[in-house]
Amino acid sequence: MSKAVVLLSGGLDSSTVLALAKAQGHDIVALTFDYGQRHDKEIDSARAVAEAMGATEHIVLSLPLGPLLDSSLTRAGAAVPEGRSKSDMSSGIPSTYVPSRNIIFLSVAASIAESIGAGSVFIAANAVDFSGYPDCTPEFLDAFQAMLRVGTKAGKEGRSIMVEAPVIGMTKAEIVREAVRLHVPLDLTWSCYKGGERACGRCDSCLLRLDGFRQAGVEDPLEYEVGR
Amino acid sequence: MSKAVVLLSGGLDSSTVLALAKAQGHDIVALTFDYGQRHDKEIDSARAVAEAMGATEHIVLSLPLGPLLDSSLTRAGAAVPEGRSKSDMSSGIPSTYVPSRNIIFLSVAASIAESIGAGSVFIAANAVDFSGYPDCTPEFLDAFQAMLRVGTKAGKEGRSIMVEAPVIGMTKAEIVREAVRLHVPLDLTWSCYKGGERACGRCDSCLLRLDGFRQAGVEDPLEYEVGR
Repeated sequence: MSKAVVLLSGGLDSSTVLALAKAQGHDIVALTFDYGQRHDKEIDSARAVAEAMGATEHIVLSLPLGPLLDSSLTRAGAAVPEGRSKSDMSSGIPSTYVPSRNIIFLSVAASIAESIGAGSVFIAANAVDFSGYPDCTPEFLDAFQAMLRVGTKAGKEGRSIMVEAPVIGMTKAEIVREAVRLHVPLDLTWSCYKGGERACGRCDSCLLRLDGFRQAGVEDPLEYEVGR
Repeated sequence: MSKAVVLLSGGLDSSTVLALAKAQGHDIVALTFDYGQRHDKEIDSARAVAEAMGATEHIVLSLPLGPLLDSSLTRAGAAVPEGRSKSDMSSGIPSTYVPSRNIIFLSVAASIAESIGAGSVFIAANAVDFSGYPDCTPEFLDAFQAMLRVGTKAGKEGRSIMVEAPVIGMTKAEIVREAVRLHVPLDLTWSCYKGGERACGRCDSCLLRLDGFRQAGVEDPLEYEVGR
């Protein structure tokens, strides 16, 4: 079996990506960052998902960038946008943007992949139902892949780490259907930007998730404060 | 004054790069990683250099990658190559290669630059007297720059963080001369891959440094175990 490093936040998308990588026959090394998110809930979810889905290893890496970065996801007290329509979400880059987050995550994932002899890195970038992040586009992933080809030992030796983004072209509803098909433990996933006991149902991430379940005709097993 | 993030290891090259960035009129935010090097000596040197050279801020970021990575610079007990000739050093990628190190460092530096409104990131990559690392070449830096243009908010808005590598084309002797011209506190810098009380004088980094000083006709103020 070939090893793959899977970036896992514990949300719907990355949990589904893990399931897809496993279905392709890879031996899974899940990688989660503790980068100063305002809540630990997503790290707990990632642990539960990795275990439930049979990851061979789960690395939780502390990267105390939070206070240095300008994002409402890491700044205590900053407001996370709520109640936005999909067209609002696509109209610009929101305050939840963490500068270069996927660039950092992919760099570390590629580094670990190279060290452990994994041939690929899986990321749950999505360019359809997304929040306008520049580091989630096919254009970005192509540029990152090109950079890995020239900037790593593996790349120089003609066996570049491949960046795989299997849900990049899927709608949220399609991702929900894939998750169901692949038996992703949806009750263990966490998508809400906030760390409450129940998902808020109002942030961009909850709204996109709820809409995806609705359109897929699947019931979301999570409890929400509002929005069901 | 425009802000610049300078990757500072505390060695000769990065200290000289800091001096060059300062001479260009930038307000300096120095950035040093504690990534599990086998010794803290280079972090102590970085602190001393940043302070002596008037950096506005010095961020020391913990990134506990060390045990995950396959490199003799981070693995306890692994042998660092010694006594190699320059042609040996250029003939392949040595065990001191830390997979994707500069990719990770540049990603984090770009992220911080974007957050604090800095327009550039300075790195002491060198493609002349170097040890065969793929992430030190102009080809790699160009690919990284292209990736930042498409993958960041700043890039999307037409004000991409610029990656500056001002010593990339210099020989070690030229770097030594620049360091002297710009009053870099050479006695505070540390280049040795080992963390002894004195520099070993035998590892690739010591050998390149000693050769550079010799060719520049400048006396290296550091004490060495052998090699002077």
